[in-house]
Amino acid sequence: MTAIKDSVHDHVTLCPVAAALLDTDAVQRLRHIKQLSTVRLVYPSASHTRFEHSLGVYHLASRALSFLGIEGDRARHVRAAALLHDVGHGPYGHQTEEVIRRRTGRDHDELGDLLETTELGEVLRDHDLSPTRVARLVRGEGELGQLVSGELDVDRMDYLVRDAHHTGVPYGSIDHERLVRELEYADGELVLAEGNVPTAESLLLARALMDSTVYRHHVSRIAGGMLERASERLLERTDLDVETFRRMADHDLLVALREDVPELGRRIEHRDLFKRAVWAGLDEVPAAVVEMDHADERAAEADIAARAGVDEHAVVVDVPPRPRFKEAGSRVVVDGVVQRLEDASDLVSGLRAARRGGWRMGVYAPEADVPAVAAATVEVLGLPDSVVA
Amino acid sequence: MTAIKDSVHDHVTLCPVAAALLDTDAVQRLRHIKQLSTVRLVYPSASHTRFEHSLGVYHLASRALSFLGIEGDRARHVRAAALLHDVGHGPYGHQTEEVIRRRTGRDHDELGDLLETTELGEVLRDHDLSPTRVARLVRGEGELGQLVSGELDVDRMDYLVRDAHHTGVPYGSIDHERLVRELEYADGELVLAEGNVPTAESLLLARALMDSTVYRHHVSRIAGGMLERASERLLERTDLDVETFRRMADHDLLVALREDVPELGRRIEHRDLFKRAVWAGLDEVPAAVVEMDHADERAAEADIAARAGVDEHAVVVDVPPRPRFKEAGSRVVVDGVVQRLEDASDLVSGLRAARRGGWRMGVYAPEADVPAVAAATVEVLGLPDSVVA
Amino acid sequence: MTAIKDSVHDHVTLCPVAAALLDTDAVQRLRHIKQLSTVRLVYPSASHTRFEHSLGVYHLASRALSFLGIEGDRARHVRAAALLHDVGHGPYGHQTEEVIRRRTGRDHDELGDLLETTELGEVLRDHDLSPTRVARLVRGEGELGQLVSGELDVDRMDYLVRDAHHTGVPYGSIDHERLVRELEYADGELVLAEGNVPTAESLLLARALMDSTVYRHHVSRIAGGMLERASERLLERTDLDVETFRRMADHDLLVALREDVPELGRRIEHRDLFKRAVWAGLDEVPAAVVEMDHADERAAEADIAARAGVDEHAVVVDVPPRPRFKEAGSRVVVDGVVQRLEDASDLVSGLRAARRGGWRMGVYAPEADVPAVAAATVEVLGLPDSVVA
Amino acid sequence: MTAIKDSVHDHVTLCPVAAALLDTDAVQRLRHIKQLSTVRLVYPSASHTRFEHSLGVYHLASRALSFLGIEGDRARHVRAAALLHDVGHGPYGHQTEEVIRRRTGRDHDELGDLLETTELGEVLRDHDLSPTRVARLVRGEGELGQLVSGELDVDRMDYLVRDAHHTGVPYGSIDHERLVRELEYADGELVLAEGNVPTAESLLLARALMDSTVYRHHVSRIAGGMLERASERLLERTDLDVETFRRMADHDLLVALREDVPELGRRIEHRDLFKRAVWAGLDEVPAAVVEMDHADERAAEADIAARAGVDEHAVVVDVPPRPRFKEAGSRVVVDGVVQRLEDASDLVSGLRAARRGGWRMGVYAPEADVPAVAAATVEVLGLPDSVVA
Repeated sequence: MTAIKDSVHDHVTLCPVAAALLDTDAVQRLRHIKQLSTVRLVYPSASHTRFEHSLGVYHLASRALSFLGIEGDRARHVRAAALLHDVGHGPYGHQTEEVIRRRTGRDHDELGDLLETTELGEVLRDHDLSPTRVARLVRGEGELGQLVSGELDVDRMDYLVRDAHHTGVPYGSIDHERLVRELEYADGELVLAEGNVPTAESLLLARALMDSTVYRHHVSRIAGGMLERASERLLERTDLDVETFRRMADHDLLVALREDVPELGRRIEHRDLFKRAVWAGLDEVPAAVVEMDHADERAAEADIAARAGVDEHAVVVDVPPRPRFKEAGSRVVVDGVVQRLEDASDLVSGLRAARRGGWRMGVYAPEADVPAVAAATVEVLGLPDSVVA
Repeated sequence: MTAIKDSVHDHVTLCPVAAALLDTDAVQRLRHIKQLSTVRLVYPSASHTRFEHSLGVYHLASRALSFLGIEGDRARHVRAAALLHDVGHGPYGHQTEEVIRRRTGRDHDELGDLLETTELGEVLRDHDLSPTRVARLVRGEGELGQLVSGELDVDRMDYLVRDAHHTGVPYGSIDHERLVRELEYADGELVLAEGNVPTAESLLLARALMDSTVYRHHVSRIAGGMLERASERLLERTDLDVETFRRMADHDLLVALREDVPELGRRIEHRDLFKRAVWAGLDEVPAAVVEMDHADERAAEADIAARAGVDEHAVVVDVPPRPRFKEAGSRVVVDGVVQRLEDASDLVSGLRAARRGGWRMGVYAPEADVPAVAAATVEVLGLPDSVVA
Repeated sequence: MTAIKDSVHDHVTLCPVAAALLDTDAVQRLRHIKQLSTVRLVYPSASHTRFEHSLGVYHLASRALSFLGIEGDRARHVRAAALLHDVGHGPYGHQTEEVIRRRTGRDHDELGDLLETTELGEVLRDHDLSPTRVARLVRGEGELGQLVSGELDVDRMDYLVRDAHHTGVPYGSIDHERLVRELEYADGELVLAEGNVPTAESLLLARALMDSTVYRHHVSRIAGGMLERASERLLERTDLDVETFRRMADHDLLVALREDVPELGRRIEHRDLFKRAVWAGLDEVPAAVVEMDHADERAAEADIAARAGVDEHAVVVDVPPRPRFKEAGSRVVVDGVVQRLEDASDLVSGLRAARRGGWRMGVYAPEADVPAVAAATVEVLGLPDSVVA
Repeated sequence: MTAIKDSVHDHVTLCPVAAALLDTDAVQRLRHIKQLSTVRLVYPSASHTRFEHSLGVYHLASRALSFLGIEGDRARHVRAAALLHDVGHGPYGHQTEEVIRRRTGRDHDELGDLLETTELGEVLRDHDLSPTRVARLVRGEGELGQLVSGELDVDRMDYLVRDAHHTGVPYGSIDHERLVRELEYADGELVLAEGNVPTAESLLLARALMDSTVYRHHVSRIAGGMLERASERLLERTDLDVETFRRMADHDLLVALREDVPELGRRIEHRDLFKRAVWAGLDEVPAAVVEMDHADERAAEADIAARAGVDEHAVVVDVPPRPRFKEAGSRVVVDGVVQRLEDASDLVSGLRAARRGGWRMGVYAPEADVPAVAAATVEVLGLPDSVVA
C-alpha cells in the first residue's frame, strides 16, 4: 500500500484503485486548482490545492467506513467517489461554477460524462468499479452518498480543518477524528451517535466562523467577482468553448485572462483589486435586488456604469443567493431518538440568524471610480445612502 | 531578561518583578495546583498547572499592553496582577472555592491579606509596586483591571487555548493573538476594535463548546462533587483551620483526604468514582431545587440517604447556580459605535439559550447504590421519573 | 470500544483488556507519577504523567502491530505489556530507580511480583493472558519484546514526541507514524525497512537534542540529585520499607520528604534548589572519579562537606555512568541487507562523540556554600580548577 | 500597522515600507513562485509560495533586530532586504537558477538592476531607503547582511519551519524563536550566545534531515532535472530573452513549456515523470564525472541517447556539485570564546560525512527507455554496474 504524507492527516494510505486514479490526468489536474481560489489574496499561506484536499477526503472516508464497519465493494466505491468528488470543478473552483452552470446546466458534482469520456472510467472499470455508481455517490445519492456529500459529509470535515491549517485561522479546527468515529446509520440515514450534540454544533460553528473570517472575506469576494466577470468575457470574446474552459487549470485561466481580458486579468494577477463602492445587508436591500439573476446583475452593471460615467467593465455587482442553512438538518441521536440538529440545539437558531445577518451584497469598482459608482448604484438599485462603503 | 519556554506561547519573557515574584513560595505553590482539577480524570493529558497558566496570562497581558501602548508604572502593575491573579486559589482551584467562601466570605480573587502577609507584598514593594493596587487589578477593578478580569480578559484567552492544547480538544483554539491585537479603550472601557464581531463571537463559542465537552463533563463534575464533600468533612472532622486549608497544594489535600476522609479520598485517588443516579435539566427541576443553597443540599443528601437506606456519605447532590452569561456583555465597536456583543451578534441569544439548555443538576452515588438513591431522590426532591440517569 | 482523547495521538482506542487494566490501582497510580519528574522545574508545561505516556505507548504498539500484520493472542500480550511497561516505576520515575535497585536489585521493568501480587495478574488472567509472558515482553525479551523495549521500541517514539509537545521544545518531533509503518521483522529482529536510514537517524538525533536541552538540563539534574539523596535519607531515617516506598506516588514522596527530610524536601517543593559548585566534562575527571559507585559518592560528599566546613547534607555529588549508546545498534535494511545503523550512517559516530562530549559530572550545594564546596571538591576529587562552575 | 495572518508565525506586522513594497508587481509575483518547486510532486501539501516565505523572513528579521536592539535606519534597511531577498528568483526558483546564471552570470540574490529598473527602487527611495544598500544586504554583505544571508540567517530559519509545516515532515521544526533570541554580534560577526551549541546543532540537523527526506527526494530531483532541460530548450527554440524568462511566474513557464517543449512540458504538468536509470554515490563515480560542467552533461546526454538508441531528449544527466557545508562555520560562544561550530560540536564531522555520503548523481529517462539508458550510461561515463537503479 502506498502512503502519501499529508500536512493535516499525516499519512494517507492508498488502496490500489486510489493509487491508479491518482495517476490520471483528471486527478493530477487538481494539483493546479487552488482549494480556496481568491482567498489566498487575503491569507497568503492558503495556497493549498484540491488535489491535497481530495486525498484528505479520501482518507476521512476510509476512516469513517472503517468505524462504520463497511467493507468490500461498497467501501471501494465510496473511497473512489471521495477521491474524485472534485474532479468536475472548473478553474478556480466555485468561482467559475456559475459561469459553467449557465452554459451547461451542470454543477461541479455532476461527473457523468467526465467518468465516461476520460481515462477515469477506464481505471474504475479495470478495478471492477462502476463509474455510474461512483458518479451517483459524488452527487450524494443513496445511503452511502451522504458520506461524500451531505450534511455530515467528510468533504466539509476535511476542508474546515485543512483551511484552518493553511490559513492559520484556528476556527476551522474541528475534532474530525471524533466526527468520523461517531457516525452511524439509523434507518438509512447518516447520523451522529448519542452524546454528540456539541460535536454537531462544533461543525456548524466552525463553518460559521470560517465563513465570516475566511470564505466570505470581502477582499476575496471582490477578486472572485472580478474573476467571474473576466471569465464571462473570455468566453464571450474568444472562441473558447465551455468544455475546454471547464477543463482548464488555474494557471491556464490566469494566462488566458491576461491575454484576452487584460483590463481584469492583469489586476487579478497583481492583486490590484477593485474596492467596495457599496456593501449592504439584507435589511437594506429591496427584495427585487436580492432576487436578481445574472442577467439582471449584468444589466445593472451597465446602468450603473453609464450613470457613473465610467467604463462598462469597471463595475461588478455581486449579489449572493439568500442565505441557506442546510446543515441545520444534520441528524443526531438524542435520548435514543434521531433528531434534526435544529430541534436538538438551541444554538442553531442563533446561527441561522447570524447567517442572515452576515449576508452582504457588494458593488465593486476601481478605486478612483468608487465615489461615482457608489452614487450611481444607490440610484439605480434604489438603496439607502447607508450602504455606501 | 529571563525567558521561559511555554508549550502554548513559546517563549515567555519575564520582566524583573515577574522574575522575582516567580521565586516566591506563593507562586511556586501554583506548580502544585492543577489548572483543570478533576477534568484530568476524563482527559488524561490535562495535567497542566496554574503556574503554567499564570505565566501565560502574564504573557498575554504583556502583549496586550504593548499593543495598547500602555507602558511604565501602569503596565508593571498590570503584569504583576496577571502573574498573581490565581495565587488566592485553594487546592484543586474552583473545586474548593465554595468551601472556602462559606467559611471566609472570600473568593479566590480577593488577595488583600495574601499580598500583605506573605513575601509577595515585600517583593512588590521592593520593585516600587503597590500591593493594594495589584490586588484591585486582580479583582478586575478600574480601567486596566478589565484586562485581568472582565469580559475580554487575558485570563480566559489563555485558559481556552491552553486547555485545548493539553486536553487535545480543539474547540478552545481561539485566535488569541488577534484578540490581544484588537483590544482598545473607548471611554474607559475595554472593547474590541471595528471588524471584530466574529472575533468576539469566537471567544464565546469556544467557551461554550469547551464547557459542554470539557469543563462540565459529567465525570469531572462527579469527581468534583466528591472532592468538595470530602473537603467539607475534612474541615469538620479535623482541627485543620480554613486558612491552612486554603494554602494547601493539591497533593496535600489528596493525602489529607486519604487519611481523614478515606471513604471518598481513596476513591478520588484511584478514580473509583460515584455514578449518576439522577441527571436533570432546568425544565425538569422545581425552582425550589434550583435555588437550594449548600445547607439545603446537605439536608437533601441526608434525606435521600435515609430514604434509600444507604450510608449518609454515599450521596452527593450537585446543583449548579442558574446559568449566567456575562460574556454576552463584551463590547465591540460596530460602525464606529461601541455595542454590547449581544446587541451586535445574532449568535449570542442562541448561546444564551444553549447555556440554559445545557444546565444539569446531578445526584451521584456508589454504583451499587444508584437505583436506590435515584428512586429516593425523585421522591425527596419531587422530580419527574425522566431524570433517572 | 472505548476511546480516550490524547493530546498527542488524538483518540486512543482501548481493547477490552486495556480498558480493564486501566481501572486497576496500579495503572491509576501512574496518573500521579510525572513523566519528566524534575524537568518541569525548568519547563513548566511539562506536567504530563506516565499514565498518559502509557496510553500513548499502548496506542503506538497497536499501530505497529497492525502494520506488521500481527494479530490475536500475540498482539494482545504486546498491547498489555505496552500499557503496563511503566507500572514498576517508583515515585518520580527514573529519579528513584537507583535507590530502589540498591535495596532490591530490581529495575523498573522487572514486574514479576507486581503482576502476581496485585489485581493486574487477575485482570490479565481473566482475559486469558499470561502475566509471565507480559512481564517478559516488558523486559524486552523475545521477538515481540523488541517492540516494547529495544532500540526501535514504541516507548521511545512516544516519549520523544510527547515530551516535545508538553515542554514546547520541538526537537523531539519525530515522524512517529512513519516509524511504526516502516518496522518489519528480519530473521526475528525488528528492523526498519529499506529507505529509512534518515528515519532511524532522526530518532537518534531527536533523542540527542532532547538530552542536551531537556532531559539533562542541569537544573533538572540538580533537583534530581537532591531528590535521590532525600529519598535515601527518608529510607534511612524512617521505618518505611522499600516496597512501600516503591509503590508511592509522586505526591506521597513529596509530603514524606517535607516531613522527614525537611532540609531537602522543602527546597524541592518550593524550587529553592542547590547550585552548581563543580561542573566537569569527561576529559577533566580522573577515571577513578568517573567509576565511583554510590558508596564512593556518599563518602566523597562527607569528605567535601567536612573540608568545606558545611553541613553534611549540603553537598550532592552527581556522577552519571559513562555514556552508552545502544541505539547505535538499531537495525535498518540498506540495499536489501540488514545493517546496524552505525554501519549505515555517517551521523552515528558524530552522535557517539557528541554524547561523550556532553557528559558532565556535577557537585551541588546551597548557594552560600558554593565557593567553599567548589574549592573542597577540587581537592578531594583531584580535579583541575577549570571545573569550578 | 497592517498585520497579515501567517500559518507559521501567526500575525506578521508590516512596517510602512514593507506594506508599500508588498503592493509592487515584483513582490506580488512571488505569490506565483512556489517555495519548493517540484517537491510538491512528492509532498502534495507543499504548495506554499515565496511570497509567504518572504513575509516569514521579514518577520524573523524584525524579531531578531528587536532582540539585538537594532533600530532606526539600519533596521529598516534590513527589514526591506529580508522582504525582498527572493525577488530575483526566476520561475520555479532554484530550479532555473543555473539556466539564468549561464546566460547572465547573475545569481538570484543579485538584485542591483531589479531594484533600479522596477518600481521597487522608487518605493525604497520614497521611504528614504537606499536601493544599493538593500541590494548589498540581500547579498549578505556587511555586518547586518549576515542576518539576511549567512550561516545563521533568518532565511534558513523560516524555510525549515515553514517547509516542515507545509510538507508535514516534522524534521524542520527548529526552535526558531530561540534562535532569533540568542543571536548577538561579536566583533562584527553574527554568533549564537553562550549555551547554544545544541541550538546551532539543531539547525544543521534539521537541514540535513530535510535534505535527505524532502529537498533532495529523488522524485523531486527528476522533475527538477526535466524542468531545467525543458527551460534550456525553451530558450534555445524560441526568441524568448533571458530577462523576460527570469521575470516569468511558475504558471507562465508551465504554459510556455507545454506549448514549446511539449515532450517535457506535458509530462511535468501531469506528473508523468522520467525514472532513474542510474543512481550513484560519490564513491562510485569517477572524479571527472563529478566535475562535469553543464556542457559536459549535455554532451553526455547526447552520447548516451545515441548509444541507447533513444530520442536525444529522453535522457537527463543530473550531477550535483560536490557537497559543501558552509553552515559548519556557524559561530557560537563557548566558555566566553567565539568558536566555529565545527570546532565546538562533535556532531558536525558526522554531518559532513553524512552529507558526502548522501550525494547522488542520477540519470533519468522515460520508463520504457530505462534499461537501454542505464546500460549506455555505464559505458559512456565509465561507471560500475552497481549504479544501475
